[in-house]
Amino acid sequence: MTGKPLVSIVSAGLSKFGKMQGLYGRELFAQAAKEAFDRCPNLDPKKTVKALFVGHMGESYEHQGHTGAASANWAGLLPVPAMRTEAACASSGVALRCGVLAVLSGLYDVVMVGGVEKMTHRSTAEVTEFLAMASDFPFEQWHGITFPGLYALMATAHMHKYGTTEEQMAMVAVKNHGNGVLNPKAHMQKEITLEQALSSRVIAWPLKLFDCSLITDGASCLILTKPELANKFTDTPVHIIGSGHACDTIGLYERKELTTLNAGKLAGQEAYKMAKTTPNDIDVAEVHDCFTIAEIIAYEDLNFCKPGDGGKLVEEGITHIKGEIPVNTSGGLKSKGHPVGATGTAQAYEIYLQLTDQAEKRQVEDAEIGLSHNVGGSGATATVHIYKRG
Amino acid sequence: MTGKPLVSIVSAGLSKFGKMQGLYGRELFAQAAKEAFDRCPNLDPKKTVKALFVGHMGESYEHQGHTGAASANWAGLLPVPAMRTEAACASSGVALRCGVLAVLSGLYDVVMVGGVEKMTHRSTAEVTEFLAMASDFPFEQWHGITFPGLYALMATAHMHKYGTTEEQMAMVAVKNHGNGVLNPKAHMQKEITLEQALSSRVIAWPLKLFDCSLITDGASCLILTKPELANKFTDTPVHIIGSGHACDTIGLYERKELTTLNAGKLAGQEAYKMAKTTPNDIDVAEVHDCFTIAEIIAYEDLNFCKPGDGGKLVEEGITHIKGEIPVNTSGGLKSKGHPVGATGTAQAYEIYLQLTDQAEKRQVEDAEIGLSHNVGGSGATATVHIYKRG
Repeated sequence: MTGKPLVSIVSAGLSKFGKMQGLYGRELFAQAAKEAFDRCPNLDPKKTVKALFVGHMGESYEHQGHTGAASANWAGLLPVPAMRTEAACASSGVALRCGVLAVLSGLYDVVMVGGVEKMTHRSTAEVTEFLAMASDFPFEQWHGITFPGLYALMATAHMHKYGTTEEQMAMVAVKNHGNGVLNPKAHMQKEITLEQALSSRVIAWPLKLFDCSLITDGASCLILTKPELANKFTDTPVHIIGSGHACDTIGLYERKELTTLNAGKLAGQEAYKMAKTTPNDIDVAEVHDCFTIAEIIAYEDLNFCKPGDGGKLVEEGITHIKGEIPVNTSGGLKSKGHPVGATGTAQAYEIYLQLTDQAEKRQVEDAEIGLSHNVGGSGATATVHIYKRG
Repeated sequence: MTGKPLVSIVSAGLSKFGKMQGLYGRELFAQAAKEAFDRCPNLDPKKTVKALFVGHMGESYEHQGHTGAASANWAGLLPVPAMRTEAACASSGVALRCGVLAVLSGLYDVVMVGGVEKMTHRSTAEVTEFLAMASDFPFEQWHGITFPGLYALMATAHMHKYGTTEEQMAMVAVKNHGNGVLNPKAHMQKEITLEQALSSRVIAWPLKLFDCSLITDGASCLILTKPELANKFTDTPVHIIGSGHACDTIGLYERKELTTLNAGKLAGQEAYKMAKTTPNDIDVAEVHDCFTIAEIIAYEDLNFCKPGDGGKLVEEGITHIKGEIPVNTSGGLKSKGHPVGATGTAQAYEIYLQLTDQAEKRQVEDAEIGLSHNVGGSGATATVHIYKRG
């Protein structure tokens, strides 16, 4: 018996992910919102949506902060109370958490949560610098390390402690690119081979180009309501039955252990407990594969396998779309793309599609329970949500 | 009969405001948190505080985002779930709103809300540019206008429509500087004369140097709990009985009217209604005086007087510390200073002091009900909170 629904998703939207030239982030957010509104014709947006929480990581990309109000403006929701939430790449994971709190509070019946980032008009050097703001300034950024370097430290520690291999990491990339081909909204709809992944150029050893997620533009959103109101808006709600959120030191250098993310573990434990589920119950999951090693660590932090066995999990096909726990059916950050602020609710969007049989070519049969796992920075923030078909 | 308490403030902290050389923002936040913890010895921070919401406007100042986790880290609260909220200069006004939602949700018994900004190590040009990110990029920033210019447009419209004078605006500055002298934590503890204010150099006519708030470093925080738990932690809680939050167009150019901020009006209406109070009930208020004209408009938006009468209100001494509705007893953004992300909860801190008889030389006698009013950007976000002595 799973836990009782906290809140229900009655609709969701996602802009096309990719290089969206000539569009501002708020226009991408409006695209995502429009899909969510169109999908839910029983809901009058301006009358019904009572608050908006928007994950947005970096004001530097578009020289634009105040993204809550700007997104409400462009989605046609004014004068709805809106705010931006930021927790690095978990910015919309925490927006979703806020939405859960907001509906549970009783102050709002219906809220929208989402996220947005416009990145591709900037050079790779600029993006790398802007992303680095999610790490520790005096003790990390100052010394020149950026995110590929930080995750490379985790990867080498994992290789050293558990024998995880470069091949296993590459297998995550191959799997997620394979899934991305099935997702018409994915940024890079292109199969890759293990050989291609392994022979791609080194970014920060052992991480190569194909171990890294993409620089992408995109936006995503969900409409949440009280479970007792869900059927007013849709016949196919998805219930959120677990929500977890935890933090860790902002600097990697302060951690006792580099092979696991404690915030991810704690967020998972909180969500599983609330949802009264175990990893065995999960039919489909989206996890935070900002780098391939991150997906392997996520398997372990979420108890899909024992610590150290993450590499084997992908090697044995368990997390393949036809495996026991399909992971990142959307293509993940690796192939669908990683517009950082949009990622958390984009993961929830994929689970929403899966649990309402709308995932088309990548549909997981009979998926009843799903999970999303969103990480900020090198693991200083993590959120985990567990969903159930309504 | 006022509305029932939504949540209760059991403690609060504020760093010294000013030019805090050699300290990072997170160190200032730790100072504010320490004061809040010291003030509430019955509360074991790490065991009791269950979540943290931190308002922080600009990651550009310190090249540091992910401020939720960083603040939790430095305040000794890990692995508490933490996030940054951003709504320009209302970043911690919305953090407070999140705290209210979070406690009402039932998921958390005790949460900390706060805000932080470190600004003075940057040049005025840099600060002006970073602040501008809260306005509309394509239609405002692009054309070179910055915040003094945007508020100057409001000021000239107000002068034109209502006959508001430069002298009346200067009187706001004189009043708030007078109050700041009574606040040992204020940035600029210095009286000014009307003549000095009027003869200071023009920044964007009719706004002169002394019409503008200060560039300041600082942090602030509050500890919130359920009203039924408040007496477990303190004998002198302050209850929040009203909370309002609304948004408006991010660009000033889209507004029908420049002499009022619709978001401020709506947030005020929501808060008054929830608190079952009227402007007549307010004994002390902190309003968002980023520019002197903003305080005059706030009087009107909050119904302290009729539209157009804001200038007279200050002229007649009604909002003087010895007047009928003392406004900005702390010195306000004008003299206490405006570390943008910290301002919303710093306003709440002042009201907390006033309603617990801890405001020392600036104590308003018999203050029972207080109000704080926090605005983001040129009014695209506003929050209003109403407080009652516990």
